Amino acid sequence: MVHADASNFAADVTKQEAYQQVLDQAEGLFYEQRNWVCNLSNAAALLWHAYKSVPSPSNQVNWAGFYTIDHSVPSTQPKQQLILGPFQGKVACQTIAFGRGVCGTAASQKTTQLVPDVDAFPGHIACDGDSKSEIVVPIVNGRNTLVAIIDIDCTVVNGFDDVDKEWLEKLAELIGKSCDWP
Amino acid sequence: MVHADASNFAADVTKQEAYQQVLDQAEGLFYEQRNWVCNLSNAAALLWHAYKSVPSPSNQVNWAGFYTIDHSVPSTQPKQQLILGPFQGKVACQTIAFGRGVCGTAASQKTTQLVPDVDAFPGHIACDGDSKSEIVVPIVNGRNTLVAIIDIDCTVVNGFDDVDKEWLEKLAELIGKSCDWP
Repeated sequence: MVHADASNFAADVTKQEAYQQVLDQAEGLFYEQRNWVCNLSNAAALLWHAYKSVPSPSNQVNWAGFYTIDHSVPSTQPKQQLILGPFQGKVACQTIAFGRGVCGTAASQKTTQLVPDVDAFPGHIACDGDSKSEIVVPIVNGRNTLVAIIDIDCTVVNGFDDVDKEWLEKLAELIGKSCDWP
Repeated sequence: MVHADASNFAADVTKQEAYQQVLDQAEGLFYEQRNWVCNLSNAAALLWHAYKSVPSPSNQVNWAGFYTIDHSVPSTQPKQQLILGPFQGKVACQTIAFGRGVCGTAASQKTTQLVPDVDAFPGHIACDGDSKSEIVVPIVNGRNTLVAIIDIDCTVVNGFDDVDKEWLEKLAELIGKSCDWP
């Protein structure tokens, strides 16, 4: 199999169909491969090319990737932080404290944050001023401990809806159980 | 600082100027941050956006990223392998045996492989049939042990020259000494 084909999406796919392909391809790529860096890197590529294949606003996604728990911060410290993982898009903030901005809130509350307008979100961190809306989905391991988050940014407001939430939560579940986490 | 600005390159930069910016920005991003996943993820973003900003053939780059040593393979085994790290581009091969293809040859010989036409390279692995030329640069740690490779693919033959080799080797040296490797 030519691996790049996994990120080729038909020209007229719907958002649901694109997400279904992301999930199917991810499941295939994760088969007998549990390395989290490898799997998150390919998952970011799948998501990026899926978004670029579907109608607006999804094709206006400008960042798709992951943050993971930063284990260089001792767990005895009161505040944990996230650290940048594999992604597609422009250079991004390296660390984000739990509770700070959209990513930090998703991490500390372990709930999906669907933010139609990031400028209205208290404490939003502007890694890229072009990003106008965002969805962040927590990833937990088999013991329901947070290990990472999926973070997707879009250059227009209302870039995401409940369809994105539903499918990204399915992807988060697949990723959570398919990788060995540090 | 808005981090995404690091990947904004002026419209009329030369290849040398773009590489200089990559190196300068990488040095800034790596300051007080030695997490290898975080740093390789941002370095892939810098390289990708640099290539997209300069004239052909560099703007025809279709994959820019990293493979690292796969530590799930015991070092007592005769054959080591590389495993996919952070990148920008389409889904890629997950593991590559030392000595196999362009990446595996760069890893086993610890020398840069500048390949004008991948189809003429013995044992080339076609992760993406669109890739026609490739440059792979080894990254070593402070003890001169191979820890990773930089891998860049281009959709046209003769996509890379000695300027790419020179600058990517500078970047490899910076990355090698700036990260804590597993």
